[in-house]
Amino acid sequence: MLYLEDFTPGQEIDLGSRSVTKEEIIAFATQFDPQPFHIDEEAAKKTIYGGLIASGWHTVSLFMRLLSDGLLANAASMGSPGVDEVRWLKPVPPGDTLSSRGVVNEVVPARSKPDRGILKTTYEMYNQNGEKVLSMKGLGMFARRPSGVAEQRDVG
Amino acid sequence: MLYLEDFTPGQEIDLGSRSVTKEEIIAFATQFDPQPFHIDEEAAKKTIYGGLIASGWHTVSLFMRLLSDGLLANAASMGSPGVDEVRWLKPVPPGDTLSSRGVVNEVVPARSKPDRGILKTTYEMYNQNGEKVLSMKGLGMFARRPSGVAEQRDVG
Repeated sequence: MLYLEDFTPGQEIDLGSRSVTKEEIIAFATQFDPQPFHIDEEAAKKTIYGGLIASGWHTVSLFMRLLSDGLLANAASMGSPGVDEVRWLKPVPPGDTLSSRGVVNEVVPARSKPDRGILKTTYEMYNQNGEKVLSMKGLGMFARRPSGVAEQRDVG
Repeated sequence: MLYLEDFTPGQEIDLGSRSVTKEEIIAFATQFDPQPFHIDEEAAKKTIYGGLIASGWHTVSLFMRLLSDGLLANAASMGSPGVDEVRWLKPVPPGDTLSSRGVVNEVVPARSKPDRGILKTTYEMYNQNGEKVLSMKGLGMFARRPSGVAEQRDVG
């Protein structure tokens, strides 16, 4: 289990990759973001995107799943107060394979609550051509290591 | 159809409301954010949240659906380059009813592409007790009104 103390500025975190299908893009957008370029293959051809692309919130959600599996499942995560500077830099069409990484910027123990702190991290997603499709600055709340719990150094 | 010219700084946009169920919270998080406090009712009781809460990305996605239905379906939306300062201010437990509003901050015609521009907007979601649960600053790309297309003033 990774605690706040196990992260250091400059540390890189590999979060793995996953692909996205046309069916997944349409299913997500039908529920949450039903704009023509996300749900209607024919209508999408007539837009500036020239075809279907994933909702930006779908891309972020796919990133979140990689973060959950690649880091949070093995860490004392307590949720998040927010994210900054979310940028959708390139369209994500069906069939893209997206890989994610994080870089730790800052580790900030909380002043008022000694059992936790905030990890400030820059996260990025790249497509199979090496183009950056998503970047954002995450604020993650993590528990500090309880006294008596042994250290672990294996991140990401 | 609303174009970039139909928005003015200070303008308020009512986006309506919707509720979220336990089943929806678990379904979204099982797919995209499988942390215990989002998917496991018993485990969630032992966390700082005291019970199940929606993934922050689920809350944002519910907001996006209200934005899609309440504004974008009737506007010349061309997507978004990103959002800033996403803040999850209060947990969203099952049964919450979330209402959304936007306030236009700035209308910025694009310099290089005369057919479009960026709408800068602050968006907020409130729960049934009037507590703000989400805020963010959106960047929306909208087409400018083509010459010869009549004006419409009815926003939100």
